[in-house]
Amino acid sequence: MNTLTLPTYADVTAAAARLQGHAHKTPILTSRTVNEAFGAEVFFKCENLQRMGAFKFRGAFNALSRFDERQRRTGVVAFSSGNHAQAVALSARLLGIPATIVMPHDAPAAKLAATRGYGGQVVVYDRYKEDREQIGSDLASRQGMTLIPPYDHPDVIAGQGTAAKELFEEVGALDALFVCLGGGGLLAGSALSTRALAPGCRLYGVEPEAGNDGQQSFRSGTIVHIDTPQTIADGAQTQHLGNYTFPIIRRDVDDVLTATDAQLVECMRFAASRMKLVIEPTGCLGFAAARQMKDQLKGQRIGILISGGNVDMPRFCSLLAA
Amino acid sequence: MNTLTLPTYADVTAAAARLQGHAHKTPILTSRTVNEAFGAEVFFKCENLQRMGAFKFRGAFNALSRFDERQRRTGVVAFSSGNHAQAVALSARLLGIPATIVMPHDAPAAKLAATRGYGGQVVVYDRYKEDREQIGSDLASRQGMTLIPPYDHPDVIAGQGTAAKELFEEVGALDALFVCLGGGGLLAGSALSTRALAPGCRLYGVEPEAGNDGQQSFRSGTIVHIDTPQTIADGAQTQHLGNYTFPIIRRDVDDVLTATDAQLVECMRFAASRMKLVIEPTGCLGFAAARQMKDQLKGQRIGILISGGNVDMPRFCSLLAA
Repeated sequence: MNTLTLPTYADVTAAAARLQGHAHKTPILTSRTVNEAFGAEVFFKCENLQRMGAFKFRGAFNALSRFDERQRRTGVVAFSSGNHAQAVALSARLLGIPATIVMPHDAPAAKLAATRGYGGQVVVYDRYKEDREQIGSDLASRQGMTLIPPYDHPDVIAGQGTAAKELFEEVGALDALFVCLGGGGLLAGSALSTRALAPGCRLYGVEPEAGNDGQQSFRSGTIVHIDTPQTIADGAQTQHLGNYTFPIIRRDVDDVLTATDAQLVECMRFAASRMKLVIEPTGCLGFAAARQMKDQLKGQRIGILISGGNVDMPRFCSLLAA
Repeated sequence: MNTLTLPTYADVTAAAARLQGHAHKTPILTSRTVNEAFGAEVFFKCENLQRMGAFKFRGAFNALSRFDERQRRTGVVAFSSGNHAQAVALSARLLGIPATIVMPHDAPAAKLAATRGYGGQVVVYDRYKEDREQIGSDLASRQGMTLIPPYDHPDVIAGQGTAAKELFEEVGALDALFVCLGGGGLLAGSALSTRALAPGCRLYGVEPEAGNDGQQSFRSGTIVHIDTPQTIADGAQTQHLGNYTFPIIRRDVDDVLTATDAQLVECMRFAASRMKLVIEPTGCLGFAAARQMKDQLKGQRIGILISGGNVDMPRFCSLLAA
């Protein structure tokens, strides 16, 4: 018995209206070097240039915009490996809502600092030993706060879908779109926009090879749970897809691919040296997978969703030096 | 007796038409963090996201587009500390013109490699001992090639002016615009666009403190020559303004300011960690000067021209680590 009502593209358009004037309409960049290497036309939707440095602002702001009077007063709680935390903290500040954020103790220092900088109250936990969902739920039930999960929520999914919506509206239909996959918020949202605006476009989710629960789930038809994967893609260390994201992904996505940490570093280096963009490891998942299958993309129009750029500079430099 | 005919804004609009479909219309980015720090509205015109990573493509392509049949056949020669070299090499390749580039032996490896990658024939020289202008002129006279200097040429100046033109056309008039200053091509071109599109806008050129020949020239009224300055801003190690750039700068610019290497590094770090942009040291000159005088900019609308992003990643990381 499944009583979930999945979000639709109408929810994405409603989210886009709410985000108007709050989220950046991020640039779509092209690189002649990439086009020549691919023998294709490649469009990078740069959510690393989004407010707070990642697409997550879209979903969080959309969700918090829909709070009623009581929810606005009691506040929001969120658990997150990083970007969602900042997104909720910033959205809450903009909307005048108190925010408590549950973050892993080993989250990048830049993300912890930025979350506090946006006015969020931070509670840390050990991501290898404690269950962040339990901690978040406890805070929500004890203090009456509204929990906004990082991906498994219709308003979050609808908000994330606005990035792909902007991409298709600006460059037209594409032959294939590559989207990074952690818990599936961005991929599910992108799926809603893709099926509405470019129905023939092949849509790929891309995960870290070390944590391919999404691929296993997509191919087996049931949500597979894994231990927290060890990967540099800290934004995609999720253990399972969600009850909202999985059915959309299963229905609308063409395949789920993977990329190794080494491939992510190569893409980070290329993006920094040739495209002048700082991209966090997770943000390179789509680019890395597209590069791996570029022989199959010749002559096509390709979209790559760059999810975020929140990586400490010392860590960024040590990854590039390796 | 001055027989030079200075370029005008009409030359900038003609250049813009030639560049259409060849140069990127680069994004103009904003940062809430910067706006809050400045108490002002700040627009970054991101020429680091231009083709080959710098505004120089605009001037070079414009100049080469105007070659006649004989010039196209015999080819172009250019001397450059880096970005102009790549710009000429790439423009020449796009237009089917042979290119020879005279570059300093200690130019960033990425710039040497990129210039060769674009198909340019590279001749190296010692920038502390040899005179690149002499070497370039010799090549031009011996082989009948057309010399395109990095800044002191009407078509180069007109091409560079298209960046500020795009900025004003997209965001409207500004109260102040900060532009980096080496030999003055970008600043003179920006001056033409500024006086045509935003006559009341204060226009500042910004040089490395170690090489303030432009400031001395601007304030004294004659072109001052200096030794090659020691600064991390390798794109602004010019020894003097040009015969075309100086009179425009003297006439249209409000003041010439300076920034230290340490201030440039601070801006590079901020841009990378908060704006997700790789900017080369020279590219941060305008940002650094604006930060220094931000108390005078409160409540205003400010433009900052980011000139380029061509910096080797190892060097980028070592500068940020210092």
